[in-house]
Amino acid sequence: MTFNTFGHSFRFTTWGESHGPAIGAVVDGCPPGLLLCETDVQPWLDKRRPGTSRFTTQRQEPDQVRILSGVYEGRTTGTPIHLMIDNVDQRSKDYGDIAQAYRPGHADYAYDAKYSLRDPRGGGRSSARETASRVAAGAVARLVIPEVSIRAYLVELGGDAIDRAAFDDAEIDRNPFFCPDPAAAARWETLLDAARKSGSSLGAIVECCASGVPAGWGSPVYAKLDSQLAAAMMSINAVKGVEIGDGFGVARLRGEENADAMRPGNDGRPVFGSNHAGGTAGGISTGQPVVIRIALKPTSSILTPVDTITSAGDATAIVTKGRHDPCVGIRAAPVAEAMMALVLADARLMHRGQTGF
Amino acid sequence: MTFNTFGHSFRFTTWGESHGPAIGAVVDGCPPGLLLCETDVQPWLDKRRPGTSRFTTQRQEPDQVRILSGVYEGRTTGTPIHLMIDNVDQRSKDYGDIAQAYRPGHADYAYDAKYSLRDPRGGGRSSARETASRVAAGAVARLVIPEVSIRAYLVELGGDAIDRAAFDDAEIDRNPFFCPDPAAAARWETLLDAARKSGSSLGAIVECCASGVPAGWGSPVYAKLDSQLAAAMMSINAVKGVEIGDGFGVARLRGEENADAMRPGNDGRPVFGSNHAGGTAGGISTGQPVVIRIALKPTSSILTPVDTITSAGDATAIVTKGRHDPCVGIRAAPVAEAMMALVLADARLMHRGQTGF
Amino acid sequence: MTFNTFGHSFRFTTWGESHGPAIGAVVDGCPPGLLLCETDVQPWLDKRRPGTSRFTTQRQEPDQVRILSGVYEGRTTGTPIHLMIDNVDQRSKDYGDIAQAYRPGHADYAYDAKYSLRDPRGGGRSSARETASRVAAGAVARLVIPEVSIRAYLVELGGDAIDRAAFDDAEIDRNPFFCPDPAAAARWETLLDAARKSGSSLGAIVECCASGVPAGWGSPVYAKLDSQLAAAMMSINAVKGVEIGDGFGVARLRGEENADAMRPGNDGRPVFGSNHAGGTAGGISTGQPVVIRIALKPTSSILTPVDTITSAGDATAIVTKGRHDPCVGIRAAPVAEAMMALVLADARLMHRGQTGF
Amino acid sequence: MTFNTFGHSFRFTTWGESHGPAIGAVVDGCPPGLLLCETDVQPWLDKRRPGTSRFTTQRQEPDQVRILSGVYEGRTTGTPIHLMIDNVDQRSKDYGDIAQAYRPGHADYAYDAKYSLRDPRGGGRSSARETASRVAAGAVARLVIPEVSIRAYLVELGGDAIDRAAFDDAEIDRNPFFCPDPAAAARWETLLDAARKSGSSLGAIVECCASGVPAGWGSPVYAKLDSQLAAAMMSINAVKGVEIGDGFGVARLRGEENADAMRPGNDGRPVFGSNHAGGTAGGISTGQPVVIRIALKPTSSILTPVDTITSAGDATAIVTKGRHDPCVGIRAAPVAEAMMALVLADARLMHRGQTGF
Repeated sequence: MTFNTFGHSFRFTTWGESHGPAIGAVVDGCPPGLLLCETDVQPWLDKRRPGTSRFTTQRQEPDQVRILSGVYEGRTTGTPIHLMIDNVDQRSKDYGDIAQAYRPGHADYAYDAKYSLRDPRGGGRSSARETASRVAAGAVARLVIPEVSIRAYLVELGGDAIDRAAFDDAEIDRNPFFCPDPAAAARWETLLDAARKSGSSLGAIVECCASGVPAGWGSPVYAKLDSQLAAAMMSINAVKGVEIGDGFGVARLRGEENADAMRPGNDGRPVFGSNHAGGTAGGISTGQPVVIRIALKPTSSILTPVDTITSAGDATAIVTKGRHDPCVGIRAAPVAEAMMALVLADARLMHRGQTGF
Repeated sequence: MTFNTFGHSFRFTTWGESHGPAIGAVVDGCPPGLLLCETDVQPWLDKRRPGTSRFTTQRQEPDQVRILSGVYEGRTTGTPIHLMIDNVDQRSKDYGDIAQAYRPGHADYAYDAKYSLRDPRGGGRSSARETASRVAAGAVARLVIPEVSIRAYLVELGGDAIDRAAFDDAEIDRNPFFCPDPAAAARWETLLDAARKSGSSLGAIVECCASGVPAGWGSPVYAKLDSQLAAAMMSINAVKGVEIGDGFGVARLRGEENADAMRPGNDGRPVFGSNHAGGTAGGISTGQPVVIRIALKPTSSILTPVDTITSAGDATAIVTKGRHDPCVGIRAAPVAEAMMALVLADARLMHRGQTGF
Repeated sequence: MTFNTFGHSFRFTTWGESHGPAIGAVVDGCPPGLLLCETDVQPWLDKRRPGTSRFTTQRQEPDQVRILSGVYEGRTTGTPIHLMIDNVDQRSKDYGDIAQAYRPGHADYAYDAKYSLRDPRGGGRSSARETASRVAAGAVARLVIPEVSIRAYLVELGGDAIDRAAFDDAEIDRNPFFCPDPAAAARWETLLDAARKSGSSLGAIVECCASGVPAGWGSPVYAKLDSQLAAAMMSINAVKGVEIGDGFGVARLRGEENADAMRPGNDGRPVFGSNHAGGTAGGISTGQPVVIRIALKPTSSILTPVDTITSAGDATAIVTKGRHDPCVGIRAAPVAEAMMALVLADARLMHRGQTGF
Repeated sequence: MTFNTFGHSFRFTTWGESHGPAIGAVVDGCPPGLLLCETDVQPWLDKRRPGTSRFTTQRQEPDQVRILSGVYEGRTTGTPIHLMIDNVDQRSKDYGDIAQAYRPGHADYAYDAKYSLRDPRGGGRSSARETASRVAAGAVARLVIPEVSIRAYLVELGGDAIDRAAFDDAEIDRNPFFCPDPAAAARWETLLDAARKSGSSLGAIVECCASGVPAGWGSPVYAKLDSQLAAAMMSINAVKGVEIGDGFGVARLRGEENADAMRPGNDGRPVFGSNHAGGTAGGISTGQPVVIRIALKPTSSILTPVDTITSAGDATAIVTKGRHDPCVGIRAAPVAEAMMALVLADARLMHRGQTGF
């Protein structure tokens, strides 16, 4: 996970800025012979695409992906797959102010402190636009683990949680919030409209669940599946917390409450009585669904003025105009799915390399 | 973070099992010329050492470290530093049962699923004994970042949280819980005694704070400081959640509440009005304290019987005897400090390599 | 050096095939603030460009590079730099035959054995066209090590060596062979014309010299500068041998003949009496010029029929038509320079990271 | 290949200095279930062990290896295998002089230039004693590739080459030179005795051949098998040249001479008419024997005085006493075998990970 590359055996490297001509991902180490064309990738990008509802940024990006290498006659060849997406709707004029003053909650000050310069147009490399590249790479990763189903959805928005009893998988794609609870989705519409109109923004919690992961993926110690997933999820813009299974809730359980009891299953594999662990033990998958939750902060770009300093060090206040998501957590759902797929594809190839299975 | 190695420019690799003859860490990429001898490492190991109170395992390990390479006349030479710790008090007979049945919450089943065999003595490689190697390596890392102070402490045990208003740094080393609140420490004593006597165990939340980290360490995207820290912390045994700054709390804040406003400081650097972000922005340190919290599950080794299966696939129930910590969260505090130091030392060398600062 | 990525602190990843729409390189870890635009890269690509004389392939590729990320207002930002080159003159029809039969000396059979499929158009990923991406990345690397001058040139072609006494640096760019000896260049013209007309090809030896490398770059053991350079050079298409300093010649020297004696220099640094070692000792640069030589096999694509088998396993003979360099060693000179620059830039950042210098 | 770690999927890290208490290797990523005990490793170490004839250093090291982790009940568990070898016969007094003056041809000056300090006892980390760790790790690697046979032998010593027509595999272990030609071995005895008695030293060329490598191992571009092998071999102390197959000889061949023609074999695999390529094409194994040759310089530690400077920068002359091999090439043969095994084991796991075979 050095700089702009993620993964070991299945790896990808992304490049590009918010307001440059294009962005892209180079996927390396992909198994050969997989059927792959642009239409395998595009639907995932469409889920993440901005401008699809009033609850996401109004920047209009078609996010059309092109596969420029690594595929011959519709099959992966085992060589690097370059996925490129043109930037179409850059309006750099919107970002004149932020070249001079640091937006609180954004990377502006930290970039200047590190590099002594930065590309201020739309946040440059720190923009969540980079996550489109991940979604494209994730589409390839899914092909490597066809036995796995991955689904991410919001379980909380602006502090308002879903009702787990009302969880309906089919509902997730029916509302603009990837929300599995129709009643919550209705409430969130009101909540987010109000926040948006008042120039504010809201946080969210996204859950991502991968089912069909066989027991044995991942590794002990520093390459624990948990550790790789935490790194992957915490690398998504605006994420400040990651938990697996019961997560922070385990800290309040007693040993006997937390134990995921096992009994013999019909197929020789164990049946677990619960999944507090979220599908891993000792860093290795157990065959249960891998369940992870991430906390996303409210969008830092808001119309409420906030005190800050200029790059010259003077006091000022800033209002961040431009086109922004009032809740970045929404579009983080397809990104979380992609990162889950990318970690699992890598884990699968690593496992197969070491053990032959 | 491949297998048993962590880090990029400052790296370390650990080896060894709970009941083997010894464990150790090879630290690689360490700057030359640092003053280092065993007495720089031993105090940190002593903090993590088992058997120091009735609230940790009664296994008696002196955890004496030996430096076998990489130091000449008391200074690091820039070559690999091997830190070795003998295992002294292995009682493998305690573990006869678990070779046959999978302990729920432990790595037993997952290891067998992955490797088709495992070392059952004390959990083998999956034992938290491995974390002694991290603490030793972390002691070296601290020398690389002398400007940074790192402190970890428990903020919650068994669901009982400290009172932040009563936070007293000096208190942390005065009780067996690394607890900064004396009243909470007193309550935890009762709480944990009760759990221990009833054959149960409790979870905990550990907070780790690094102050003195200058702005500019870390990287955008996949090597975000947040991402490295999350990977580091989630690799610690029994950790199921990681959060930075306000963590999951940010999901319930509005944009203006979450903004860490800045004003000009006297030294040319900004003064922040708050630290919701926990010391990072865009994956790069901001000069504020880096604050991370981790959730640890209750020890899985309990005296309460739990349903499970044997390695042959038959139903059984298991009681885990042996010597165990009733709350693994306690001894995780020095381990969290070590992982923080290791991540920051690596970040510092990476930053210096790329930028010269 | 995993798959399609090279380097540690200064890293690059390449993608693309001979007959795909484009090729490119993503340079990662580049220091910020370096002046960089397309005109810094293009001259190096022009040196490697095909079709500039009758001694290179007649494929017409303008090799115009575009920088798609990582630069803002003419300076590197420290984020990934994507360098892309469109393929313009693909004539895939030339390659109909080789989809069916394995060309001896080419990667055809090995690719099929590994991946069970391959892109036969122009050799796909195994084409030397990939080296254009290296040359582009190498141009960025040069900016990281401005104190270093790198020069590669042919010292032997078709078994005919230059006269070292006639070595003239200025001559290298005056002939189509990067030959520093004008008399040899004249002989090679005749030699290669004859080989080309007879449908054959010739091998070559390229020497690459980097002067201005300060003492201290590189590392002991597995990251020896020698080792990194050997990996870099051996990764160039058609290279089958690499030697540093006197190389294979040292095997015939006695200890006292091979010793590079030192005496005090005026600037506090030693003056060496010879450079048998080629600028490294123990894997670390000594301040002397780094000198490396590589052996390139004759182009495998020849008009002389060679016995081979079809992908179905039947005996056949093959004549490789298409547009080929009669001596691939010539255009390898700019590629060797690029790889030298890439290794040294990485070594510099690694050294600065570890030691601060 | 960062610092002291080599490999990707099958990796190892070494530590230790010539005159420290011990040296060792941590092997990581090893497949589980392999039968492994000390007696699998010891014979390889015995081949490399010093003091076995008058043609190697008289330092007496039993080189007894201990396996401290990663093995349970005689089988590898998939966790790190620590192989440790105590140093027994350190005589640091021999090295008093070299703390003050730089030995030409040694790493002394370069280490000081890099690290500003060094361990002068026996060359510290730059001593060839480190290669014992590689041989131990290589013994584990061999278990990963049981289908492969690896053999290294000297083909030239002091400029005197073997007669290929007299090549006798059984002869290699019958003389102190790993020489396959008995007549050459007899000549070398005289040659090396003379060099030794005159206080000089000789260079050598070692060839290493791996048969049984199936087609398909290795990767295109930067992870070419050739590239990994070159990095591995060039990392061995005193190696200044590496060539694969015909190596530098290919530069003197014409295309049709260099072509390894193929015809159908009885088992569906091709039969090659020659092996100029040395078993690889496009960086991938072809199923032919992998053949590599390395050039080793004459030992730099000689009794003939050589001009040099002190660490204070003053002129002096140095004679290197101590116990040294008069030809380091001899003991490099078992080391070359180990590095070949380590590269191939890694290539095998990488290949299996990506393709499933």
